[in-house]
Amino acid sequence: MTQKVSVNNILEKLETHIQGLTYGESPTELYEPISYIMSLGGKRIRPLLTLLSYALYKDDFESILTPAAAVEVFHNFTLMHDDIMDDAPLRRGKSTVHEKWNPNTAILSGDVMLVRAYGMLVDIDPQLLPKCIRLFNQTAAEVCEGQQHDMNFEAIDIVQEEAYINMIRLKTAVLLGFALQLGAILAGRDDKEAQKLYDFGVNIGIGFQLKDDLLDVYADKAKFGKQVGGDIIANKKTFLLIKAKELATGDVKAELEKWIAAKEFDKEKKVKAVTAIYNQLGIKSLTEDKMQEFFEKGFKQFESLQIPNQDAFQVLHQLTKDLINREK
Amino acid sequence: MTQKVSVNNILEKLETHIQGLTYGESPTELYEPISYIMSLGGKRIRPLLTLLSYALYKDDFESILTPAAAVEVFHNFTLMHDDIMDDAPLRRGKSTVHEKWNPNTAILSGDVMLVRAYGMLVDIDPQLLPKCIRLFNQTAAEVCEGQQHDMNFEAIDIVQEEAYINMIRLKTAVLLGFALQLGAILAGRDDKEAQKLYDFGVNIGIGFQLKDDLLDVYADKAKFGKQVGGDIIANKKTFLLIKAKELATGDVKAELEKWIAAKEFDKEKKVKAVTAIYNQLGIKSLTEDKMQEFFEKGFKQFESLQIPNQDAFQVLHQLTKDLINREK
Repeated sequence: MTQKVSVNNILEKLETHIQGLTYGESPTELYEPISYIMSLGGKRIRPLLTLLSYALYKDDFESILTPAAAVEVFHNFTLMHDDIMDDAPLRRGKSTVHEKWNPNTAILSGDVMLVRAYGMLVDIDPQLLPKCIRLFNQTAAEVCEGQQHDMNFEAIDIVQEEAYINMIRLKTAVLLGFALQLGAILAGRDDKEAQKLYDFGVNIGIGFQLKDDLLDVYADKAKFGKQVGGDIIANKKTFLLIKAKELATGDVKAELEKWIAAKEFDKEKKVKAVTAIYNQLGIKSLTEDKMQEFFEKGFKQFESLQIPNQDAFQVLHQLTKDLINREK
Repeated sequence: MTQKVSVNNILEKLETHIQGLTYGESPTELYEPISYIMSLGGKRIRPLLTLLSYALYKDDFESILTPAAAVEVFHNFTLMHDDIMDDAPLRRGKSTVHEKWNPNTAILSGDVMLVRAYGMLVDIDPQLLPKCIRLFNQTAAEVCEGQQHDMNFEAIDIVQEEAYINMIRLKTAVLLGFALQLGAILAGRDDKEAQKLYDFGVNIGIGFQLKDDLLDVYADKAKFGKQVGGDIIANKKTFLLIKAKELATGDVKAELEKWIAAKEFDKEKKVKAVTAIYNQLGIKSLTEDKMQEFFEKGFKQFESLQIPNQDAFQVLHQLTKDLINREK
């Protein structure tokens, strides 16, 4: 027998669980930043994917709230350290940890946060533990690799499309894949089935990042909630800019390079001009096609699964589609 | 039957094993710093303790070289991140990672190094894995706590002796305890026996740090290999300075505070003057007594063990004594 699965019900229990987590008492400088970053919210997509993946097969998702939350703790650890490296002042509209405290505290709190993520995995069924830790280790290392590639890209002129896709696969997508895979493993499914969910997650994860790249330029200002064109202003090497650099020739190329090289400029003008170049080169539909390619590949893998709980299947399917169609 | 245990034989095999470790290929910026810091050498005390602890009970120490080396990888991860926080230019006479590369690379390489340490533990007997990961997690978090306390101490005026001992217990000693405990667990010993080895390690670890504090001031220049008085010059809150601040009164107190407050000073003069204050207050023997107290407590725990391999017992006993009597 299967019960009705509801994203809101799962999210509510997940959020209560996350708010109840404790990481340590003393010294407070070490542990307060963890509670702080975990309290900033966010969509909790990763643990939600773990719980929904588990719910495809089993009813008692409450029994895996801790390992699911481990994925969120790990994700927030990467944000804490990435924010130092990117010198980002804000995270979800609030001060980043290295700004509110200092970089040393953000380094060390992040370190202990990674340790705590392992601590939240260690109570899973001992039979499954070695496999889960191994997969988590691989994912965690790949996320670091992705961040290093991303930093490397900022320092070079030309990034190939393939290298970019590989970077976002590592930096963003593999953790979504792991989140889904973990749910299936904890539900007792075999490696082949868990691997399909992993592949589904990696493909939609790449699609989500391409969607992010698109939204930065083409979001509806009223709905987006942050500055449209932030990536353009910062010359961030998104899929859009990489393709534009690849395809632009003659005057268009010169115009694009002028805006990239400009040290002082009117932000609005730059966003408008670079967007016009993207439009001229058909970058929007190119990106949409690429995104669609990954979504389709992902859904094909997902739909090939034999899922006992069709209700949960529909819920996960719908959630993914909502994320694809999001406007912010 | 037990075979002859030799520190040199174990160290040689350990070093070969460590030199053969690989951490990842690409991006090179992420993985080269790991090979670099691991190649800088050091005494390899921690994995040596794991191997010697295992050798107390079993002959085939070669079978646990990887988990033993995990302790060394973890230790070097903490050095890589501590060096950023302390803005240290040199480590074992060579450039620190954040100096040779940059702080971001040192943050991220350190992160992946911590992940790799877990990866080197994951192949141990699955029956023992949950326990080992749990103990490692606790140790790792405590080492971070110790580092945070140490940083906090630099920013405050008065540190109590008890707080200092607790800080060095966390920052330094618990990892020596874990190293010994891990060896016993991997050799199949019960929790009580492993705990005794842990307690032995923690107590001698605190003693070793007090020895370090002493050597900085009282080492024989010719044998020490680095500047005598470095801690005095930097006003580092060692056990010696903490006790001196506690005990000094009147003119001696004023003299000590003058040297601590001085922004510009002749280094040699300061070392000489503060050492004279220490001598006047009997700080050397106070520290030696405290150190001895911890060593005795540790050895009492060690000597209460029922060790099948008496040869290994003697070797570990002697190694610890050599470390206690070291002159650099």
